[in-house]
Amino acid sequence: MSEQERDYDEFRVIEDLAGWRRTHHNNELTAANMDEEVCLMGWVQFRRDHGGLIFLDLRDREGLTQVVFNPEHNAEVHDRAHAIRPEYVIAIKGVVRPRPEGMANSNMVTGEVEIEVNEYKLLNTSETPPFPIEDRVEVGENLRLKYRFLDLRRPSLARNFIIRNKAAQSVRRYLDNLGFLEIETPVLTKSTPEGARDFLVPSRVNQGEFYALPQSPQLFKQMLMVSGMDRYFQIVKCFRDEDLRADRQPEFTQIDIEMSFVDEAYVQDMAENMVKTLFTETIGVDLPAEFPRMTYNDAMRDYGVDKPDLRFDLKLTEVTDIFKDSGFKVFASSELVKVMRVPGGATLSRKEIDDYTKYVEIYGSKGLAWIKIKEDGGWQSPIVKFFSEEEIAQLGERTGVQPGDILFFQAGAADIANAALGNLRCELARDLGLIKDDVYTPVWITDFPLLEYDADEKRYVARHHPFTSCQPDQMEVLAEEPGKAIARAYDLVINGYEVGGGSIRIHTQEQQKIMFAALGIDEEEAREKFGFLMDALQFGAPPHGGIAFGLDRLIMILTGSRSIRDVIAFPKTQKATCLMTEAPSAVPSKQLRELGVRLREKKQD
Amino acid sequence: MSEQERDYDEFRVIEDLAGWRRTHHNNELTAANMDEEVCLMGWVQFRRDHGGLIFLDLRDREGLTQVVFNPEHNAEVHDRAHAIRPEYVIAIKGVVRPRPEGMANSNMVTGEVEIEVNEYKLLNTSETPPFPIEDRVEVGENLRLKYRFLDLRRPSLARNFIIRNKAAQSVRRYLDNLGFLEIETPVLTKSTPEGARDFLVPSRVNQGEFYALPQSPQLFKQMLMVSGMDRYFQIVKCFRDEDLRADRQPEFTQIDIEMSFVDEAYVQDMAENMVKTLFTETIGVDLPAEFPRMTYNDAMRDYGVDKPDLRFDLKLTEVTDIFKDSGFKVFASSELVKVMRVPGGATLSRKEIDDYTKYVEIYGSKGLAWIKIKEDGGWQSPIVKFFSEEEIAQLGERTGVQPGDILFFQAGAADIANAALGNLRCELARDLGLIKDDVYTPVWITDFPLLEYDADEKRYVARHHPFTSCQPDQMEVLAEEPGKAIARAYDLVINGYEVGGGSIRIHTQEQQKIMFAALGIDEEEAREKFGFLMDALQFGAPPHGGIAFGLDRLIMILTGSRSIRDVIAFPKTQKATCLMTEAPSAVPSKQLRELGVRLREKKQD
Repeated sequence: MSEQERDYDEFRVIEDLAGWRRTHHNNELTAANMDEEVCLMGWVQFRRDHGGLIFLDLRDREGLTQVVFNPEHNAEVHDRAHAIRPEYVIAIKGVVRPRPEGMANSNMVTGEVEIEVNEYKLLNTSETPPFPIEDRVEVGENLRLKYRFLDLRRPSLARNFIIRNKAAQSVRRYLDNLGFLEIETPVLTKSTPEGARDFLVPSRVNQGEFYALPQSPQLFKQMLMVSGMDRYFQIVKCFRDEDLRADRQPEFTQIDIEMSFVDEAYVQDMAENMVKTLFTETIGVDLPAEFPRMTYNDAMRDYGVDKPDLRFDLKLTEVTDIFKDSGFKVFASSELVKVMRVPGGATLSRKEIDDYTKYVEIYGSKGLAWIKIKEDGGWQSPIVKFFSEEEIAQLGERTGVQPGDILFFQAGAADIANAALGNLRCELARDLGLIKDDVYTPVWITDFPLLEYDADEKRYVARHHPFTSCQPDQMEVLAEEPGKAIARAYDLVINGYEVGGGSIRIHTQEQQKIMFAALGIDEEEAREKFGFLMDALQFGAPPHGGIAFGLDRLIMILTGSRSIRDVIAFPKTQKATCLMTEAPSAVPSKQLRELGVRLREKKQD
Repeated sequence: MSEQERDYDEFRVIEDLAGWRRTHHNNELTAANMDEEVCLMGWVQFRRDHGGLIFLDLRDREGLTQVVFNPEHNAEVHDRAHAIRPEYVIAIKGVVRPRPEGMANSNMVTGEVEIEVNEYKLLNTSETPPFPIEDRVEVGENLRLKYRFLDLRRPSLARNFIIRNKAAQSVRRYLDNLGFLEIETPVLTKSTPEGARDFLVPSRVNQGEFYALPQSPQLFKQMLMVSGMDRYFQIVKCFRDEDLRADRQPEFTQIDIEMSFVDEAYVQDMAENMVKTLFTETIGVDLPAEFPRMTYNDAMRDYGVDKPDLRFDLKLTEVTDIFKDSGFKVFASSELVKVMRVPGGATLSRKEIDDYTKYVEIYGSKGLAWIKIKEDGGWQSPIVKFFSEEEIAQLGERTGVQPGDILFFQAGAADIANAALGNLRCELARDLGLIKDDVYTPVWITDFPLLEYDADEKRYVARHHPFTSCQPDQMEVLAEEPGKAIARAYDLVINGYEVGGGSIRIHTQEQQKIMFAALGIDEEEAREKFGFLMDALQFGAPPHGGIAFGLDRLIMILTGSRSIRDVIAFPKTQKATCLMTEAPSAVPSKQLRELGVRLREKKQD
């Protein structure tokens, strides 16, 4: 065999297509094409020799087609086909034939046919890949990322990028039809000290100065509204130099939208229709005709988080009042006591409860109190002995607890108790199988507080950003009791993920000044940081607002992906490196000298 | 009046739209809408008080509509309208009426109608802008760039972004229909020492290492082909830290396209149709059904440059042979002597010729010889006295010179002579009015040399990039006489601008090794710089090729803009600064410390 293979080597020279043009992708040919002459190209997924014939499954982005080399049909071509191995790249010309009786494969679109090969070109060979090119691949992600060009050949991953493209084009079509202009904003922008950490780019021409990569085009899109562009959008890369969590990337993509002469309802209607169109056009799912709306306060009350997952029912119930004079001091002394009733949860084991106790510690909780309701109605719990009968009765009544349920408690600072119980809610739902596939529950969260108090800095900071408007009747509230002002802001939440968020912006100097005052930013600081915004507001800024969607997150939901890295072609690891290209990397010191910077380590100078 | 104005102040508080929704843009209402109730919003272009009425021209992105406040119709609203100044932002509700007899303005789409105002909201005031918001504005570009949000209000500039958006959507639609996937490639990539200077981004997580902003997604798009994505495109920002010429920006936008299983003709057909569709859909211009093709050698011979402007006829003629034994030593000793005949050019003055002599010096020329053919057929020239009769006769015959013409000569090194005369050709055409508006002459330039000799580095370098394939029958030429190898590369030139360029790429290890050898890059260096490409070629890379278009340049051609800054929303100056945001800027030293870098100046440490 090895001698034979050497002979074939002569056929694998840099072979040109020499005018061959592919007629079909590998998912196209069916019985309707019978006896057509076709030209296919692709990768060899699989080779099988049987009864003197050589069968190949030929793969491309779209699918597989079976190809047959028959020595009786063309001996020379059949002979050369012996050299073919998996992942070789070939081109064939042949005729569409029915598969022999009983050999049809109803799992394949092309399963009724095979191509009888007349002519064949070996376009490239391949070494054996470091992992098989198939959907279920049991290899470490690092190996997959190093050989990303092979990982992306796997059909399940390739599909994500087909959907991602569909999604982007759907959004563009929708917005273009509404008269939105896609306008590119700069990537080399100005560093602003607000917000997350900027990626910096040293300037060679202006040594000692730096550009920043944009965290979002926020100010540019507002400038475009001041300039009368009326309706702007952009699908645009944004950058944050933050420590990466599992679902974060240093660069991510935003669908950025801004409109003039609109209010919240207008932006929400537009965005809601966009998302509905997106789901229909990419995955054929029809979202509810009208998305429900929920205030921030209601979301926090019922779900403990401002991005509730409404695919399942579990709700939180506040019981602070029940225990305010309780003998159980942990509850009595707490700012907030909340309980979540989990129907049927009494079957949870001690070990499972211990695991959930560890889980809530992530959110700063110090423990997880629980009560199981036995089938006989008895309450089993380490804490119930501290409760009065009155407390037990009220608790039972308010939660509507039933035999077989479990109650989980959080008590303490409101933010920690809410976060712990709100996230436990989702964790439990996953574990208990309460979440059905292919269910999508969009909800608008509205009426956010405009500001939040930063205990470290001892001042109010903007919850969204300092250009968010407050409700029009609340200018005095903002000036006098900033913490109580309600923002004209809204988030779109789907399945517990915040997929989009936006607001009506401040468009007058007066309100911007009041806002900066509430944030403790004096005029000099405002001018230094946002001088051009202050300028712009002087020259006829129109009322405007917008919304931005995280495209990566949307694609995760549309494709059902668990990792953000499965919807980004060349993602970074959690250490912000690219394993394929080995970025970042050291650079010659000459390059740094040109930029007027050097590394801090002395030895590098 | 001033007292009255103070009173109006109370109306200009942060006024909310309170449910008002705009019904039309300001270019929409015509006689067909007579008597409709409408709601318009926009900026006040112009106010005129006449006969007790107040007339405004209301402007938005789309156009102007005349609005009338009539005291007899609504006294309170008319009274408040006195406060209105240019660039104020207002909303009105009113009824579409015919303009009075003889007042129609046929220059405006909406010129037959005016809106009789019933209700009015002042949405914002404006100070007097630093320059008027109108097309012909005689102010320095720096002031315009500082107040870019006002500059963009000018209709001629706004129109560029409307066309730019149309162009981008047209290209996307076209490619999407052909099954291209838009796939985003990283912005934080690896620095490669080839090509232009990279912008660098220090890594905080991996201190001492740097990302580079991509000069193009070249290697990523090739990886996508290896991964079977088949047809990729992206409208994507690219970056080059080069000293800026008038038509360059540090960040620019590319339409980046790559296809598998194709040859040159396939890519060119696809691209040609894309560009034709683009011109038709954006500016209604039908380009020629088939673009002419011209080899690199022919372009250099006839036009002296590889991006010939074919809107006019002037051609260059080589006459080296005529003068090879000439008594005129300047010509006799030259590698190349070329002449351009300019019909009717004998009217050029001595001063004009002197200016052109200075012009060709830009290209390294040391002088500009010329001969005027007088109406009586006599030759007037400082050099003709050195020519033999035979030389004069041959020159006359080969150039076909006529009375009234001028001949311009370049002699010397071929590259300088060609560049000088080729560019002079375009300069002359502009000055002599040989270039008609709205004429577009696309041409494919093909058969480029694969390599060019770099005299400084004493080695061959890739003319395009080191992944460009040579013609399939030229592998031996590449190995043995690298300078003679012809690339599978092609440029699309329109009106003398290279708007796109591409090639069929190397897809086999064998050819890539020969290419690197020809470039003097040894295996270790190749592995270090392009390791993942070398890996990828081992695992079944398909034949592939592509093309990239400069979007900014295309938009300049489509809009007839003279400056690249007129087609970029927030451009940088030639010093790579943004005058609006004042980027780049100094950053706190804490930020640099986190990145592990510091400025070279001692005092900054």
